[in-house]
Amino acid sequence: MILDSVRRLLRRGAITHLERMVNKMHPADVANVLHHLHTPQEKRTVFELIKVEGNKAQVLAEMDEGDVTEILADVSSAEIATLIRNLPDDDQAYILTSLPEERSQEVLRLMKPEESAEVKDLLKYEPQTAGAIMTGEYFALPANTTAGEAIRKLQQGEPENVFYVYVTDKEEKLIGVLSLRQLLQVAPDRTLGSMITKDVISVTPDTDQEEVAKQVARYNLLAIPVVEKDGKLVGIITVDDIVDVMREEATEDMLKMSGTKIEEEETIMTSSILNAVRMRAPWLLTNLFGSMISGLILWFFRFTIQEVVAIVTFIPVIAAMGGNVGLQSSTLVIRGLATGRIELSDVRKVFLREVTIGLLIGLLCGVVGLAVASVMHINLTLGLVVGVAMLCALVVSTTTATITPVVLQRYGIDPAIAAGPFVTTANDITGCAIYLSLATAFLSYIK
Amino acid sequence: MILDSVRRLLRRGAITHLERMVNKMHPADVANVLHHLHTPQEKRTVFELIKVEGNKAQVLAEMDEGDVTEILADVSSAEIATLIRNLPDDDQAYILTSLPEERSQEVLRLMKPEESAEVKDLLKYEPQTAGAIMTGEYFALPANTTAGEAIRKLQQGEPENVFYVYVTDKEEKLIGVLSLRQLLQVAPDRTLGSMITKDVISVTPDTDQEEVAKQVARYNLLAIPVVEKDGKLVGIITVDDIVDVMREEATEDMLKMSGTKIEEEETIMTSSILNAVRMRAPWLLTNLFGSMISGLILWFFRFTIQEVVAIVTFIPVIAAMGGNVGLQSSTLVIRGLATGRIELSDVRKVFLREVTIGLLIGLLCGVVGLAVASVMHINLTLGLVVGVAMLCALVVSTTTATITPVVLQRYGIDPAIAAGPFVTTANDITGCAIYLSLATAFLSYIK
Repeated sequence: MILDSVRRLLRRGAITHLERMVNKMHPADVANVLHHLHTPQEKRTVFELIKVEGNKAQVLAEMDEGDVTEILADVSSAEIATLIRNLPDDDQAYILTSLPEERSQEVLRLMKPEESAEVKDLLKYEPQTAGAIMTGEYFALPANTTAGEAIRKLQQGEPENVFYVYVTDKEEKLIGVLSLRQLLQVAPDRTLGSMITKDVISVTPDTDQEEVAKQVARYNLLAIPVVEKDGKLVGIITVDDIVDVMREEATEDMLKMSGTKIEEEETIMTSSILNAVRMRAPWLLTNLFGSMISGLILWFFRFTIQEVVAIVTFIPVIAAMGGNVGLQSSTLVIRGLATGRIELSDVRKVFLREVTIGLLIGLLCGVVGLAVASVMHINLTLGLVVGVAMLCALVVSTTTATITPVVLQRYGIDPAIAAGPFVTTANDITGCAIYLSLATAFLSYIK
Repeated sequence: MILDSVRRLLRRGAITHLERMVNKMHPADVANVLHHLHTPQEKRTVFELIKVEGNKAQVLAEMDEGDVTEILADVSSAEIATLIRNLPDDDQAYILTSLPEERSQEVLRLMKPEESAEVKDLLKYEPQTAGAIMTGEYFALPANTTAGEAIRKLQQGEPENVFYVYVTDKEEKLIGVLSLRQLLQVAPDRTLGSMITKDVISVTPDTDQEEVAKQVARYNLLAIPVVEKDGKLVGIITVDDIVDVMREEATEDMLKMSGTKIEEEETIMTSSILNAVRMRAPWLLTNLFGSMISGLILWFFRFTIQEVVAIVTFIPVIAAMGGNVGLQSSTLVIRGLATGRIELSDVRKVFLREVTIGLLIGLLCGVVGLAVASVMHINLTLGLVVGVAMLCALVVSTTTATITPVVLQRYGIDPAIAAGPFVTTANDITGCAIYLSLATAFLSYIK
């Protein structure tokens, strides 16, 4: 509804109205409206209406990368440097990585050294790792600080969001953690060192963000500390950023499963059409050649087909059913591996389960196939061939669909990427091969 | 690794070892180990090793529903009542809903009225709504409380996790909110009413949990208040529960897209095989009949096929490519709608974009098809028919794949459910129809 009003005001050129409206909105809502406006020009017009500089910066921090790129395309590097200077370091890093490399370097040069030091540290890390999404702004104190002193520090402001108090030694190594609540409930003269939890769940800067999300979800954390291999505390990742990571990773997995090689969810709508084609084409071409193998199999059996043309009726049926049952199995396994519901050590159990399911569904569909084929072509032998081929195809299909993601995972390849292409194509091919071999073997009875 | 050790100790019957180990583990880790053990018997053995009652309860709260059901199957209702009595109300509700209806009623009867009052309230709400996942344990104070008084209240304990201070009027209506940090930074004699933010983002008890997650993610909240239509505050939902909701919803969507009607992710491994077949069969049978329509089309064109059997080579190719390109488009649209990246008002833009992509990919695959068909069968006309059919099939396929989820969403049907079955089957059918009609039309030239 907000979006519709903004569009209407834009169309009418009612800029004063629009300006009043935009400046009353939550930055996240402004970011959302900007995302849904159609042209970069419209986006920039609305963005420029935000009066308070800090709000502008917050809107940028809430936007998708693609939108940030579009909106900042015309803004000078000096302006960007001023705009983002008061943002938390992780938001700065996010905006800078959305810009082309040379531009972000220029912005960094234009920032004061003391303003850019922290964000420069973050930019060193690989994208999608703990290091790249953490913030260097956390609340850490030495072990001999008293609770009273800690509370006073807290009251002085900075950092903005405090979830836990981290306790470090002289070398900044993390030795323990306590919650804000614990801090408030003890006598003011107690030292932090005497009340910390020492088994701290933490990650290293190179931990994959998906793994970070798993840890935070499993242990219900509000923030997770990032420590170097030597134990030095270098940052924290807060749960609100984890929420974004989870959404992003789920999207990525779904798109990968449908054979779209996509790195960032934001590119769904903002990347150029040619770019989209480039991201989708690799699997499609793989699949094109894969399905041609099915075609070759049919060609190989062309004399069977010519002799009993009724056989063609069930080619699409067996091919489709193999693909579908396989897709269900591989989705279950891929998702289970991604969420940790299935571990590699459960594989045998899952495998037996899926194969049994394939067998039961195969029997069900096989009987239906047998019935339809027998009645339609008044040919019981063809019906039997269809039924048995269906059963075999579905069992083979659940088998490959369960094994493929597990094997890929074991070799360190993301199972979501390859399940789609491999499994669908493989099942098409085996389905056709099984069906036509059977039909050829029993050709003299079918005729 | 923990899991492997537990399994080894179980196998060796080294119960004392195992007991020591289990009692040192984080409840979430115990829950994870229990999930991966193979038999209900093993799960119960390990669960009974937990000595502290409170830890037992926490492990239950961290487990999947299916696991809870299995583990509590042998535990008496009276024991369950004692076990869960000190858990937060939302965790109690979670465990009770995992039990069969009569059992959970029995447990409620066995709890003291003052212990069961809150959880009974929660159980009234529909599953997967804000009401069902909220907790009644939040920190709410009247507007005339001073900051000093509020801090004292906080120091007395209860409720356990405080994210925000909610300020209510005499009728318990929510009038504003402030952060813990704000509370700590003002003079102790200031009243809460003078420092609250009044525009509170909230949900009602019947809001769908997916919508709650969207709000929490969009506004980076740590907790969201749940208020009745008349403004009365009845509960809050904290971000750690939202993290679980997000994982669950993403899994649900993926499984729905692969045609598995699954309600709870936990059923992936724990539901019975027959149950799994029941959940997967509906789409498979729809698809079985759908693909038979493709078969009927081939049967209808059997004379064409018999005359130029080379035509069969490209049937699987065109059917598969239509399905694949369609799956990519529908996944993009479904996921975009689910995350709010695409809104219904963006439809025209997305539609034009997808159709253009379909056209480009169609051209690309069409040319490959043309080339292969011409060379393989030394028949340029067949090549042209294959190429043109491919192009048409892919454009039709992106079109239906983009429109179907949008139409379903508009009519209030979850787009994820139907995109798989409808789109794949429809594309198979139209692909076959287009290809064979074209081939028949140009039959005299192909021969």
